[in-house]
Amino acid sequence: MRLRELAERLGCELLGDGEVEVRGVAGIEQAGPGDLTFLANPKYAGHLAGTRAAAVVVGPGHEAALPRLVAKNPYLAFARAVALLCPSARPAAGVHPQAHVDPTATLGEDVHVGAFAVVGPRVRVGARTVLRPHVVLYEDATVGADCLLHSGVQVRERCRLGDRVVVQNGAVIGADGFGFARDGEGQYHKFPQVGTVVIEDDVEIGALAAIDRAALGETRVGRGTKLDNLVQVGHSVTIGRDCVLAGQVGIAGSTRVGDRVTLAGQVGVAGHLTISDDVIVTAQSGIPGFVEKGKIVSGSPAIDNRAWLRSTAVFAKLPELQRRVRELEARLAAALGKPDGR
Amino acid sequence: MRLRELAERLGCELLGDGEVEVRGVAGIEQAGPGDLTFLANPKYAGHLAGTRAAAVVVGPGHEAALPRLVAKNPYLAFARAVALLCPSARPAAGVHPQAHVDPTATLGEDVHVGAFAVVGPRVRVGARTVLRPHVVLYEDATVGADCLLHSGVQVRERCRLGDRVVVQNGAVIGADGFGFARDGEGQYHKFPQVGTVVIEDDVEIGALAAIDRAALGETRVGRGTKLDNLVQVGHSVTIGRDCVLAGQVGIAGSTRVGDRVTLAGQVGVAGHLTISDDVIVTAQSGIPGFVEKGKIVSGSPAIDNRAWLRSTAVFAKLPELQRRVRELEARLAAALGKPDGR
Amino acid sequence: MRLRELAERLGCELLGDGEVEVRGVAGIEQAGPGDLTFLANPKYAGHLAGTRAAAVVVGPGHEAALPRLVAKNPYLAFARAVALLCPSARPAAGVHPQAHVDPTATLGEDVHVGAFAVVGPRVRVGARTVLRPHVVLYEDATVGADCLLHSGVQVRERCRLGDRVVVQNGAVIGADGFGFARDGEGQYHKFPQVGTVVIEDDVEIGALAAIDRAALGETRVGRGTKLDNLVQVGHSVTIGRDCVLAGQVGIAGSTRVGDRVTLAGQVGVAGHLTISDDVIVTAQSGIPGFVEKGKIVSGSPAIDNRAWLRSTAVFAKLPELQRRVRELEARLAAALGKPDGR
Repeated sequence: MRLRELAERLGCELLGDGEVEVRGVAGIEQAGPGDLTFLANPKYAGHLAGTRAAAVVVGPGHEAALPRLVAKNPYLAFARAVALLCPSARPAAGVHPQAHVDPTATLGEDVHVGAFAVVGPRVRVGARTVLRPHVVLYEDATVGADCLLHSGVQVRERCRLGDRVVVQNGAVIGADGFGFARDGEGQYHKFPQVGTVVIEDDVEIGALAAIDRAALGETRVGRGTKLDNLVQVGHSVTIGRDCVLAGQVGIAGSTRVGDRVTLAGQVGVAGHLTISDDVIVTAQSGIPGFVEKGKIVSGSPAIDNRAWLRSTAVFAKLPELQRRVRELEARLAAALGKPDGR
Repeated sequence: MRLRELAERLGCELLGDGEVEVRGVAGIEQAGPGDLTFLANPKYAGHLAGTRAAAVVVGPGHEAALPRLVAKNPYLAFARAVALLCPSARPAAGVHPQAHVDPTATLGEDVHVGAFAVVGPRVRVGARTVLRPHVVLYEDATVGADCLLHSGVQVRERCRLGDRVVVQNGAVIGADGFGFARDGEGQYHKFPQVGTVVIEDDVEIGALAAIDRAALGETRVGRGTKLDNLVQVGHSVTIGRDCVLAGQVGIAGSTRVGDRVTLAGQVGVAGHLTISDDVIVTAQSGIPGFVEKGKIVSGSPAIDNRAWLRSTAVFAKLPELQRRVRELEARLAAALGKPDGR
Repeated sequence: MRLRELAERLGCELLGDGEVEVRGVAGIEQAGPGDLTFLANPKYAGHLAGTRAAAVVVGPGHEAALPRLVAKNPYLAFARAVALLCPSARPAAGVHPQAHVDPTATLGEDVHVGAFAVVGPRVRVGARTVLRPHVVLYEDATVGADCLLHSGVQVRERCRLGDRVVVQNGAVIGADGFGFARDGEGQYHKFPQVGTVVIEDDVEIGALAAIDRAALGETRVGRGTKLDNLVQVGHSVTIGRDCVLAGQVGIAGSTRVGDRVTLAGQVGVAGHLTISDDVIVTAQSGIPGFVEKGKIVSGSPAIDNRAWLRSTAVFAKLPELQRRVRELEARLAAALGKPDGR
């Protein structure tokens, strides 16, 4: 595609030769002739002069010798360019002869069902949805239109996925929540998990993530929220819209997460609490209680991020601080004598 | 079901109108007419007055306007009520025509084998056990009676599951332990993992949990123990009875965990150590060595829980403590002069 | 096998009766008559006198009454002995009639394809590779020779595995990386993940591990590196040779890990940074930035391991330190009066 055409389709300003042909996409260090690249993270700005790319997507105010597309949000513009230049192949509509679709299931138009996929009794699958091989949909599950479920995804009974939901390989939606009642002898008895899971539109769920069904009622993941790999969402949790949960995050049961919340990698959240809108939790932190709207918190247990940064700086010098206290005690004892009663 | 009948079947005291009909179950905030609800966590006591439930299961001493069942352990009583009111549908006995059962395998009475399940050579499956679609049992595996293995569960060669074991979707039992011997050039050579895994009766294993086979001998999970999602149990680990391991817990190889131990979410336990009976480890803690019977420990590395709570409180004020030490030094220097030799 | 023959095949010195017959292998406490055992971890040396094993593999300088093989690296020698005494059964070559192999795929000599495995269009599988049941290879994937992929492994489109790669059950190679561009309204848009994953020769990947494909270019795991269960490797990460990543480790996108690096259990590594060769990161640590060659680091955020050990020792005594500061302030105030301005 000519750079000029790409600029028009993306709605970007074009600087330099618009007749340049771009055929592929690559990172700024790896790009070769014919590639479009981008600069969004200032960490990589030094590579701009030396790139062999044919063209670059940049933010406003960047000087560069090569042809460029200027976008307010260069990462977003480049993401759209990638979608245009490298469209993903969609499997053809139809049911693989080695799949198992229950006769009571309903498939929308142009659905693709891969080999060894299982579509259980009374399942409904919306138009144009793709079920790759080995997807399992238990009885009464519902999957919306234009979804993509990769191989090995399991959706349990009665769970509901909205439209345009993407689920990466091996994720499990609707396994029983972890609910057991302890008796007087210390033995645990299963609390039947009779609730369900609702995944709203435009959610993406990472590989090998587990979103448990509610004990009662529903576990819910809000519209547009993105979950990374190996994330654990406990029973009856509610997650709002446009949140980001990075890899290996865990949320215990009955917690409510607001809208536009970011939980960085390996964060843990206790049960039965609320994280308000627009909160950011930094990596490996642990949330023991309520978090106010818009806070950035860190540590385990988490505190205000700036306070945590200061405390961790002192933590690294604790032995020195201890020694200084010991010296103060010695000097004071030398000057004033030992404290009373010692 | 009439509330009176439910009270009798649960062995609960009935207060109020026993002729009330209960048809469903719900949380105290979500319950509508016809629902039974419960109150176990005092955090939710304020909702008792406003609930629209038909009846409630409570502990002794609660006043309420609506009909109620009084149980010493209301959560346990309610769990039993849910099992009575919402019995789970059991798939019909029989082998799906698209399953693969090796001719040398032995299936007990009324076993269910779902689509695309694989039952390998010489496998034995006990009576009434349910293998949902896509369960894989490698050669010589044994599964007891009345078990439920959800779709995507993998059980490796020679591993043994007891009776009434429940395994959630995608869990892996008996993958090779992580054992490699390093040679003089720094390269790793596999230590063949020739041991096995034993899961005792009444264990439940969460979705996408991994319980590795022993290098030699066996990895063992004791009777009645419950493991949550994404838990990692290393090779040759022994876990006692009636333990609870919450989501994303990891235990390194050859560690022994006693009976009635609770490991909260994301806890990590090092290898070759012992955690005694009745220990509680709070969330995200790391266990580097032996833990005495009955201790509650926290932190990474874990220390006594109360000491940890006090230390974390000071941690949040470390910059202030550092400033106070600096001021003491300044005042003392002003009063006494600088320390010798500086 | 006679101990004498085993000594010759392993190249070990034999001390004691070489005519002893060894039939099995076992840990030093569990070994019975006929078993070979070993002593590598000094923690278990006390069990040497009491073992019932027929023979033992030890390091130089150990006295023992029973016949023994002396090896500089007893763990490595024993690993080789186990491979000789307990050879693993390899499934017979051939494609299971219930597998699905696309007609455009190429299978090398003596490949085994298990039940319900899926080998997609244009996939190439090298000689003698074993695909257990339920392995899924997406279109254009490549798997080398002498590999072993356990049941439930998913390899996505265009990913490439070298020779002698072992993948434990349920691992996912090449799922989409976690890349989303946020727009002005706070909504996330998918960055198409058009890159791939390269797994070099002799790598082993644990159960339920997830190695994401690159956004652009490739994610790479270097020759001989071993990954444990439930490990998360983000998009465009590069891991060097002969590394060890223990259970539940997570590495965020675009990070570079050098050669011979050890990441202990539950370590988290932030994105876009470099960990140099020969680094050791202890369990549960978090890496926020560059780590120099050969360093041992600990904590979250990680600092030098020895400094961290000293700081954690003081951490446990923080309340006492705080009290001592308070006493110093009181004594100084008594002696000198309160500080100015208070």
